[in-house]
Amino acid sequence: MGFRTFNPSLNSWNSEVYEATSELELASKLSELASCQSEFSRSSPIDRARFLRFIAEQLSSQKSVIQEMYCKESGLSPERFSAEWTRTMHTLELFAHYLEKEYTFEKVQELANESISIRKKRLAIGPVLVMGSSNFPLAYSTIGGDSVAAFAAGCCVLVKAHPMHVGTSMLVAKCIEIALARTEFPQGIFAHIIDDGVNLAQQIVADNRIQAVGFTGSIRGGKAIMEIAQNRPSPIPVFAEMGSCNPMIIFPGLNPDDSKVIAQKIGQAICNDAGQFCTKPGLLFVPSGMEGDNFLHALKEAHLTKSPVPMLHPRIFENYERRKKEVSTVPQVEVFTCPTHTQGIEGAWTLAETNLEVFQSNVLLQEEVFGPFSLVIRYDSQDKLKHVLNGLPGQLTASLIYSVKTTEVESFIALLCNKAGRIILNGVPTGVRVLEVMHHGGPFPASSDSRFTAVGPDSITRFQKEVTIQEENIS
Amino acid sequence: MGFRTFNPSLNSWNSEVYEATSELELASKLSELASCQSEFSRSSPIDRARFLRFIAEQLSSQKSVIQEMYCKESGLSPERFSAEWTRTMHTLELFAHYLEKEYTFEKVQELANESISIRKKRLAIGPVLVMGSSNFPLAYSTIGGDSVAAFAAGCCVLVKAHPMHVGTSMLVAKCIEIALARTEFPQGIFAHIIDDGVNLAQQIVADNRIQAVGFTGSIRGGKAIMEIAQNRPSPIPVFAEMGSCNPMIIFPGLNPDDSKVIAQKIGQAICNDAGQFCTKPGLLFVPSGMEGDNFLHALKEAHLTKSPVPMLHPRIFENYERRKKEVSTVPQVEVFTCPTHTQGIEGAWTLAETNLEVFQSNVLLQEEVFGPFSLVIRYDSQDKLKHVLNGLPGQLTASLIYSVKTTEVESFIALLCNKAGRIILNGVPTGVRVLEVMHHGGPFPASSDSRFTAVGPDSITRFQKEVTIQEENIS
Repeated sequence: MGFRTFNPSLNSWNSEVYEATSELELASKLSELASCQSEFSRSSPIDRARFLRFIAEQLSSQKSVIQEMYCKESGLSPERFSAEWTRTMHTLELFAHYLEKEYTFEKVQELANESISIRKKRLAIGPVLVMGSSNFPLAYSTIGGDSVAAFAAGCCVLVKAHPMHVGTSMLVAKCIEIALARTEFPQGIFAHIIDDGVNLAQQIVADNRIQAVGFTGSIRGGKAIMEIAQNRPSPIPVFAEMGSCNPMIIFPGLNPDDSKVIAQKIGQAICNDAGQFCTKPGLLFVPSGMEGDNFLHALKEAHLTKSPVPMLHPRIFENYERRKKEVSTVPQVEVFTCPTHTQGIEGAWTLAETNLEVFQSNVLLQEEVFGPFSLVIRYDSQDKLKHVLNGLPGQLTASLIYSVKTTEVESFIALLCNKAGRIILNGVPTGVRVLEVMHHGGPFPASSDSRFTAVGPDSITRFQKEVTIQEENIS
Repeated sequence: MGFRTFNPSLNSWNSEVYEATSELELASKLSELASCQSEFSRSSPIDRARFLRFIAEQLSSQKSVIQEMYCKESGLSPERFSAEWTRTMHTLELFAHYLEKEYTFEKVQELANESISIRKKRLAIGPVLVMGSSNFPLAYSTIGGDSVAAFAAGCCVLVKAHPMHVGTSMLVAKCIEIALARTEFPQGIFAHIIDDGVNLAQQIVADNRIQAVGFTGSIRGGKAIMEIAQNRPSPIPVFAEMGSCNPMIIFPGLNPDDSKVIAQKIGQAICNDAGQFCTKPGLLFVPSGMEGDNFLHALKEAHLTKSPVPMLHPRIFENYERRKKEVSTVPQVEVFTCPTHTQGIEGAWTLAETNLEVFQSNVLLQEEVFGPFSLVIRYDSQDKLKHVLNGLPGQLTASLIYSVKTTEVESFIALLCNKAGRIILNGVPTGVRVLEVMHHGGPFPASSDSRFTAVGPDSITRFQKEVTIQEENIS
């Protein structure tokens, strides 16, 4: 019994039928992966950089085929494909460059008076399972941040395709295989499997040949994986990026022009691609009174005429509708839905509005609504606001919009550094840049481990252990 | 109902009676700790360096009092005290120096054409619970590697004194408090509690104000803590260093002089301070035949006359006797006990001998025996030896003794890099040096996370999260 992917633009199932990888095939791939690990561990970072560039070349040669499948399986626009494509190419190049820079992953110290030489090396942790995201069929999936980081670390990679874009994943996997054939590495360092549900993934996380997991998805999914990983006879690290509400705090005292500009940017960040981003601003703390009213007016106006776009999948659309309903049934929450007509699984952009007290006493309001939705919380006291922010769970980002960086603003920054992995000052959180200084992660439940990032070359350390080699003379 | 510590040298309980910290007192310390964290998080690394040096100064002024209590509670010699003392002072100085070097813990990147400035900072993860070791009353306890790393990271520290050396811990805690009073930091960034059992510790690991745990002890203890930490509503990282068998592989072809020298060093590493080190060589893989026989003869001879010393505690002595008995009842295991007469809780040094096949088929032989014991495994095939080593659980260290670094030796090094956190070539694993290039850790169950070290300034990253601050202009 096979399964199919969905075309959100046509609001219908695609014709291709996929068969889940069999247990037998999985077993053979896992054993192949494990047997190739030690050779790949010994590979030079320079050769791994070459491999990443071959992948980029191979992808480029298949760009139009991948784009067609990508759009067919996600309903995302060609412009969005182009942005994700650029990000993927940039990641491959940036990591290749980093590998060349860090080509030894080694620190050496000589204790000359004792004739002891000590080297500390970063080595592959072992085979990594990668489970990509639903919302980035390219840049955080088959050859997304996790796979690139794991390859860069010298780890064999087993990708479980996201069931919503299996076709795209298979095309990308094929590119990886062809790129691999151009290297000296054994073909078995990469494996790709497909499954409609979570059975195979759960089995793989528990398999003692897998040494780490990279996951992007829901809190529930991430927690389930963390639990399996922790209950193995030998627990393994899981890096799970599980989403966030991304609070934005608008301070009073903005000049009206700035207020309009930022309202425009925030509106865009909420609506763009139906707000299906882990960094979409989902909570807007807006001052009460006239100034806040004007800001909200500008925010609503900015996107009244924006055409709605389909969401990624009927399941995501249903969740969106369900969560919006949950929020809107809370007493003292007022809902404003963009009046533009929607059809199929298009997500209508929606703002809800309430006050600090109602927000604080309703956990339902503090959880992510995945889609083009934001909850506005009006505040009239910065002290009360601080108290509420202190009670929030961990976030990927938190943003502050202000005209002057007062000591009060500084104290909010300090507070938010304990709540989020990235603080944005006078900007919006969407559009995570792939840089060495980027941190994409945050305290639980935004991610499983606030010490690591999912974006940028520092993400390689998630998949590297350290080993010291100490060389002496017997006599 | 209080509890007492034990004097191994006199084989009797010390007279001081200690009362476990009450729940009420613990609650107040935890809330104090949590309320001081944000101020300490903002402190400058330079000021934290100063604090570490004040601690060293204060300890120095109390050296003789601490030494007296240390010896009384551990039975360890003044020479050993001196070694641990030097290590503790060195750690404080090395970390202080490191903080001065890394004084910003920050990387900055300017995206000039977009007027965006992005900084990535390492910040304190939050209050840390430290549970020190039984076998290092000073260097891995109250102001040991974990506490120094946590303070250096900017984390408030709650130390639970090891029940076997509560008196020493209280003296050291007093020094920390006096040093703290010389700084501008609030007194509440450090708290010290005592408890005879594990109740308070379990409660603290589950408390949502604690954000990380440093633990040194048994696998059973470490796993229990990992489980509590993982099952919290917000899981937290635990760094547990849980011990190891530290395999040493003696290759054939050593010249007789080298063979004697290394036998002498290994004997010393097994017997020194009753072998109560996490890096004590517990498994010796020795070639079969005459050459191996000669090596073993030299090993036995080297320490025949060494006087036994008391173990740290009756409980540790009993475990040692129990584990030796377990090993010696395995068929085809021959036991050689040093004939010197022992009394009280002195640990007699013991070698057991078997072959690869017996070793491989008995899990009991593959587990640590804490004390002056080593299991000799004779091998006649390097391929079979590799197979057995591949099946070992994770280790803190693995050592190779050879005359020429052949490609065969290299292949063993590669194999062992997957099994241990430190590889020693032609030396013994004891005497971990506190250096920037040191890695003290290893794959599970040697430690809970092979990506981090418990020794050296890199251990600070266990207790730091990353935050990126992205600063833009609205218009």
